This record gives sequence, structure tokens and C-alpha cells, in this order.
Amino acid sequence: MLTYTFTDIGSDSLYHHLYQCIRDDILSGELAAECKLPSKRSFAKNLGVSNITVENAYAQLQAEGYIYSIPKKGFYVRKVSDLALPVGKSSAHLPEREMKHKKYVADFVSNRINAGQFPFSVWSKLLRETLLERHEELLEAPPWGGVLQLRRAISRHLKEFRNMDVSAEQIIIGAGTEYLYGLLIQLLGRDKIYALEDPGYHKIAKIYENNGVGCRFIPVGKAGMDISRLRESSCHVAHISPSHHFPTGIVTPIGKRYELLGWAAGEEGRYIIEDDYDSEFRLVGKPIPTLQSIDCSERVIYMNTFSKTLASTIRISYMALPRHLLEEFERRLSFYSCTVSNFEQYTLARFIEDGYFEKHINRMRTHYRRIRDELVQAIRKSPLASCCEIAKEDAGLHFLLYINTGLPDDELLQRAQRAGIRLSALAQYYYSSPKSAPDHTFVVNYSGLSGAEIPYVVDLLAKCVFGES
Amino acid sequence: MLTYTFTDIGSDSLYHHLYQCIRDDILSGELAAECKLPSKRSFAKNLGVSNITVENAYAQLQAEGYIYSIPKKGFYVRKVSDLALPVGKSSAHLPEREMKHKKYVADFVSNRINAGQFPFSVWSKLLRETLLERHEELLEAPPWGGVLQLRRAISRHLKEFRNMDVSAEQIIIGAGTEYLYGLLIQLLGRDKIYALEDPGYHKIAKIYENNGVGCRFIPVGKAGMDISRLRESSCHVAHISPSHHFPTGIVTPIGKRYELLGWAAGEEGRYIIEDDYDSEFRLVGKPIPTLQSIDCSERVIYMNTFSKTLASTIRISYMALPRHLLEEFERRLSFYSCTVSNFEQYTLARFIEDGYFEKHINRMRTHYRRIRDELVQAIRKSPLASCCEIAKEDAGLHFLLYINTGLPDDELLQRAQRAGIRLSALAQYYYSSPKSAPDHTFVVNYSGLSGAEIPYVVDLLAKCVFGES
Repeated sequence: MLTYTFTDIGSDSLYHHLYQCIRDDILSGELAAECKLPSKRSFAKNLGVSNITVENAYAQLQAEGYIYSIPKKGFYVRKVSDLALPVGKSSAHLPEREMKHKKYVADFVSNRINAGQFPFSVWSKLLRETLLERHEELLEAPPWGGVLQLRRAISRHLKEFRNMDVSAEQIIIGAGTEYLYGLLIQLLGRDKIYALEDPGYHKIAKIYENNGVGCRFIPVGKAGMDISRLRESSCHVAHISPSHHFPTGIVTPIGKRYELLGWAAGEEGRYIIEDDYDSEFRLVGKPIPTLQSIDCSERVIYMNTFSKTLASTIRISYMALPRHLLEEFERRLSFYSCTVSNFEQYTLARFIEDGYFEKHINRMRTHYRRIRDELVQAIRKSPLASCCEIAKEDAGLHFLLYINTGLPDDELLQRAQRAGIRLSALAQYYYSSPKSAPDHTFVVNYSGLSGAEIPYVVDLLAKCVFGES
Repeated sequence: MLTYTFTDIGSDSLYHHLYQCIRDDILSGELAAECKLPSKRSFAKNLGVSNITVENAYAQLQAEGYIYSIPKKGFYVRKVSDLALPVGKSSAHLPEREMKHKKYVADFVSNRINAGQFPFSVWSKLLRETLLERHEELLEAPPWGGVLQLRRAISRHLKEFRNMDVSAEQIIIGAGTEYLYGLLIQLLGRDKIYALEDPGYHKIAKIYENNGVGCRFIPVGKAGMDISRLRESSCHVAHISPSHHFPTGIVTPIGKRYELLGWAAGEEGRYIIEDDYDSEFRLVGKPIPTLQSIDCSERVIYMNTFSKTLASTIRISYMALPRHLLEEFERRLSFYSCTVSNFEQYTLARFIEDGYFEKHINRMRTHYRRIRDELVQAIRKSPLASCCEIAKEDAGLHFLLYINTGLPDDELLQRAQRAGIRLSALAQYYYSSPKSAPDHTFVVNYSGLSGAEIPYVVDLLAKCVFGES
């Protein structure tokens, strides 16, 4: 069996030393690709260390992508050529530009979900059945809005889950909300001016910018987008996320929602794009009605995604258009082929119809609540507790972490980056006046954590804050 | 067993009568959804008709979507609610707008491939293995260009199949070429003017139009895009399909290819988008080198799709960018998530790597050659022979059918439509001067045919031409 010595490790921790030994052996080729690592228990016994030491070392190797696990089988060495390593380490065969695709110990920015949470066996079963039973339909171009079965399933889901009255006909499936935004620009018009939330999700502004349309940044106050500023602006379309604003975590209250609808109804051609990206994961209390469900003037375009509820890498999102826009869409844009594979549309339809989706969301909600609680607890028990505040932790999959420190945000983010933690500062999401952003406030998207790494990550973060990084 | 009488059928053919009887029973609910139909042989025996009569009736019912087949098992009745029926027939539960999604006896316009040709069992096996083995990678956001394994596999394929030197890094995966065109407009700029082939593929012009960019229609002569007209134009980017022009079927000869490259190299900022959508299916002779492979000035953006080689409903296409454009892409557009599901990217990578793709293409080429030959033969043996000419039948999956008739194109197309045949006229693809288009010439894309329906379809078509429709 694989063995290492633990003498002369200085102040290094046992697990970190073990992690480094194994990593070096993987990089040197000593441990070959696809080779199985010893089980945690027998390895620990053999090395004379505790199980938890091996577990932590494996967790870090896995988080960094050096090894992978097969459930109920164990841990395996990944091919070095598949690793995104820093230049100089076996990088010769990798496209240069992909180097930036670094693995993190913890990534609090991306939407990745933890692999342990995806319903692989159910999905695999439904895919197999779909492939067996639907030869004809799988190869037939679906209607422009997408596969009917899926749109019917979504329509029923929206009725049950969000009390929304949306017919299958109104639903348009697309490969990610980013793609759907592009379609909406084509539908609503390049001459329109779009109101974006400030602060807000970076990609949204980039999409409008790259599509060459005008947009204005409207400040987000304590209750969502500032309506008087919206009224003063010359904007025609407001792109907002009232259920859970990113990054501030603000939930727009019901009174404000009616005001927004009032703005939209106030003039011909005004619309609201309601981006409901993670409403399924409100962890406390009841969800607030969507704008779409209380809109009587057909001014709300509702948008949601399966990125958070299923996996961002499956790339399935949808929007629900008001009926009068459907005609316009059909006339001008229905020539576009639906961008999502039929194979996955039919599979997802079954996943929803057969009740798996609801179960999965419930399970995920419990999982995220646990991750959030463990992370919050770990912060509160760590040296960080004395200088931290946590806010907006009840809705969706991120919260705000205020750290009372003399370090500039940039410096702290760089330290975190070096320690393998990907984190962002609230100020980074402010467009017009970054200086008006709250200082030292960080956005913590915890959806990618598995749980096991939390103590280690919080420890690393504390070291960054207290200058030991 | 199901039985029908064949008395009093007048001039109707036996198979058509049988088809109508079964169809009526499906629509009335007499034949329930998912119910298995009798085997052809025993049904024929029981009815006292020939096997071929039952076969033809089943073929038509299947082509129109009333029944479906499960290989080695038999034919089953489809759920009526899943059928796109004319208004008035069980349409109450279907979204109104989807009505247009009609089933055809033969569709010579869409890119649908015949269900019997898709490698379902291999695909299913590879999907299952991917889902078992790649838990981590499946859920991890791929690099912006797409999953590396797939891009490496495509790079090797292009080397072997098209003798192209394209690194994995240069390849960008997207959900359909339509989506990639949109990205290119964002990359190359909205201020650029795009040269489009006239005649040409409708969707391309619509995409540029809906993205609000300028374009000019440049005539396609006997050897491809007219270069002197291209030079005279103020265009910066030429969007062409030199391997097999749609709809004329023209293959741009090598000399003209160098001229096109000369045009592109003649001024800073000029590019050629080389749309190589069906080069794999050149049925006779060797493929001509792609523009990309003979381009020394990095002016060619190569684009191809798996829509023709695998299935259009899987929605996987790719483009290869010149290296200097990669940097620009990375700087401005790499924030976009790849639009294709990881699950299918990894599966397709395996499909190519393990040699299935090459085998599949070879099999499909043989299949298409057979379909084309049968269709051409059937036309030559039919009453149409006396008034028809077939051209450009050697490259790709469509040919031109000239019909010497007094009927206006519109009238013939409408008759065909009523008979359940979807066909288009060459003139429909001319933008600037539809009147300059050759008269009575039709575009026959035969990729969706199964073969069995050919005699029936040619018969229908002849009836349309000779006025019996």
C-alpha cells in the first residue's frame, strides 16, 4: 500500500502534508491515472494517522480536481492531462487559454452544484427510457417554443408551485437565460432602453452591451429597484429579480411589486423582465407571489432556469411570454430552432411529470439549509466571529458576509484567491458608483459546497483576514 | 383481430382505404393510445390483402404520426393528444399556435433525419457510461469554448477527415449554428456589413436582420459567390458555403476559393464565414479542401454542425476561430456559458473518440446514396420522367428537380402541401430578384426519407403535376 512518512513536517498540519505528498505523486506520474487510492480507513491505519486526516486530504485533493470519487467504490486519480494546472506543470498538452479554468478549494462565485446532489440514477433511468421509447419524437424538430410535453410540465409546475397561470403555449425553452435575454432583445427591439439593477449580476449588463442596446443602471434600494429613478429614466424595459436580488439578497415586498406593475402599465410598450432564478430556494417562509402572477396588463415576461434546481451544465431555461407578444415572436423569431436538445427536453419533462423534480427540490432545499447552517456556524465559531456579520441568509443560495477589517477588498480577494477560495465583493457588482457600495462586504454563494470542506475553508478564510495567508 | 371491409371503396387504392380506416379509428378513440397494431403479415392474411398493402398503409400512418414503431416489436398507436391535428379534430388541449407543426408524408424542406438511422443503442450506452463515470465533470462549468474532450475529438476529426489544422483551443461549441452566427455578429461587430449568398438559406438572412446588422445579397454564379460583385460591395464579412451551396448545390472550385481568400486578405478586418454544413455527405468523389485549410492569413472562420451527421435535434455545432480572434473572443464574450449540455458534450466526445462517428457517417453516406438513387429512379420510372430533370445530385443531401410544367410554382407547391408533401421552389431562396430564378425548379432535401415511402410520394407528386391533386 501507498505510504508516506510524517516526520519533519514542521508546522504543517498532518492532512496538508498528506495532501501534498499525494498531489506530488500524481503530478510526477508516480500515481497513475485512474489508479484507485486506498480506502480512508485502511490508509489511516497504515499511516498511523486518524481517519479524519485522510478524509481531509482526500477532500482537498478532490476539491482541487486531482482525484475523483465514484460513489460506493472509492477515490481515483484523475488523468493529469485533464487537470487545469498552473503553467509549467504538465500543461504542454492543454490549450493555453483554458489554463484560467482553475479548480478551487471553494468557489463562492460560480453556480456549480455539488456533484453528490445531482439525481444521477433517476436521470439516467429517464434518459434511457426516453431513448428507448421516443425514437420518432426525438429526431423530429420540436415546435419553436420547445417540446410540448416539457412546456406542459413546466406550466403545471408553475401552477402548483408558484400559483401562476401560464399556458404551455406561452412558454419558450432555451439553452440558458443568457440565450433567452438575446432573444428578448430581438423581440422587444434594439431601440428600447433597458433598466438594469445597480448593483446587479454582471453578465446581464454584458449581454445588453454586446448586443449593442442602450441600458441605464437604476439603483437598488432597500426594497428593490428605485421606482422614482426608474420613472425619471427613459427606460422601456426593466430587467429585475424581485424574488431574490443578486447580489444584495433583497426581496422586493408586495407593495413595491404593484408599483413596478404600475410603472409598466403606465405607458405603451413598457415591459418587466422578471428573472426568478432561485425562488425555489427561499429557505424560510413562503415565497412572495411573482410579478407575473399579479400582472393584469400583460407586461411581465417571466424567466426561470433549471440551472439552480437541477444543474447549470444542463443548460435549460425558459421564459413565459404575455400572449400578445407570442404573436410577435411567432412572426419574427419562430424561425430559430429551439436550442435545447430534444433528448434532454423529453427527459426533463418526465422528470417533472413523474414527481421527481418536486422531490429533488425539497431535498436540495434541505441540503442547502444544512450547508448554510454549517457555514454560518463555522464562521461564528471561528476567529472571524469577532469581526463578521452575516446578512440576507434566508432567501436563495447566497448571503452577504461583512468583515470588519482594515484590509482593502482587493487585497483580501487576492489572498483568498491564492488560498484557493473564489470570492467576490459586493462592491464589484456596483456599476455607476462603486464607492457607494458597502465596504468589506462579500457575496457568499454556497451552492457548490459539499459540506465536508467547510471547516477547512473557514479556517483558510480566517487566515486570509488575519494576515497569515 | 382488427378488421375492415374492402367493398365499396370505389377508385380508392386498397392501402389508402386501409390507411383511412385505421386513422379514423385512432381519431375516434376506437383504437386506444399505445395499443399495438397487428403484425403486417397476419393483418394482411386476415384482411385478405397483400403484405405490401398493409405495409404502405402503416408507412403512411407512421409518416403522418398516427402510429409509431418500436424496432423488433411492431407498430403502436400514438396518443391523439400528442398529434398535431388540423383544428377541429381533438385539438382542444393543444396550444393553438402549435397547430402549424404539421406532419408530412414527405418533408423535403426540413433537416430531420429518419429515425431508423440514428444510432440509438450506441448513444444510449455512451450516455449511460458518461453518467456513471463523470459525476464531477458533468456538473462543472466547462471552459467557455466547451468541453475540452469534445473539442479535442473534433480537432482530431477535422485533421483526419478534412486535413484541417485546428487546435482544440480554437474550437467553440454552441447550440446550433444559428446561435453561433449570433455570437459571431457580437465578435466581428455590428458595424460590419455582411455579404450573403443570393440565393441562400433563408434563416441566415433572418438572423442578420433580427440582429440589426447590415447585409448585402451577392449573386451566386456557376462557381459560387460572384467575386467581382463582392469586391464592389462595401462588405467586410462574406458568409458562404463553398463545399455545397444551399439551395443551388454548387461546389466552389479551388481556383475560386483562392480568389475568395485573396479578397479577404486584401483589407484589414475582412473575414469569411465558411459554413461547411454537409460536406461529410459528398456522395461522389473526394471533398475539396476547405477554405480554412488553405487560408494563410487567418481570415476564415470555419463552421460545422452535427445536425446533418447525427441529428438536428441534438443541437450541437461548432466553429473554429483564427487564433487572433480567440483573444478578442475571450476578452469580450467568454462570459457566456457554453450553450450545450455537458452531458451531451461528453457523450459526443466519446462517440467520436471511440470511432462510432466515423462508422456512422460511412453508414449514413451509404444510406443517403441509396435513398437518393431510389428517389431518382422512382422519378425516372414515373410519369414525371417525361418532364423532369435532376441536377446537382452528387454533393450533400439535396438536389434540384426541374419540372417542365405550365403550372406556376406556387400552385404546384400548394398542391404538394395539400397532398402532404413539403417542398420548396428554388425561386423562394432568391432575395434581390426572384424573377431571375430558374422557373419550375424545386429543392429536394431527401435526408428525412426512410425509403419505403418513395414510390407513394413520387406517385403523389406526379398527381400534383398532372393535375389530379
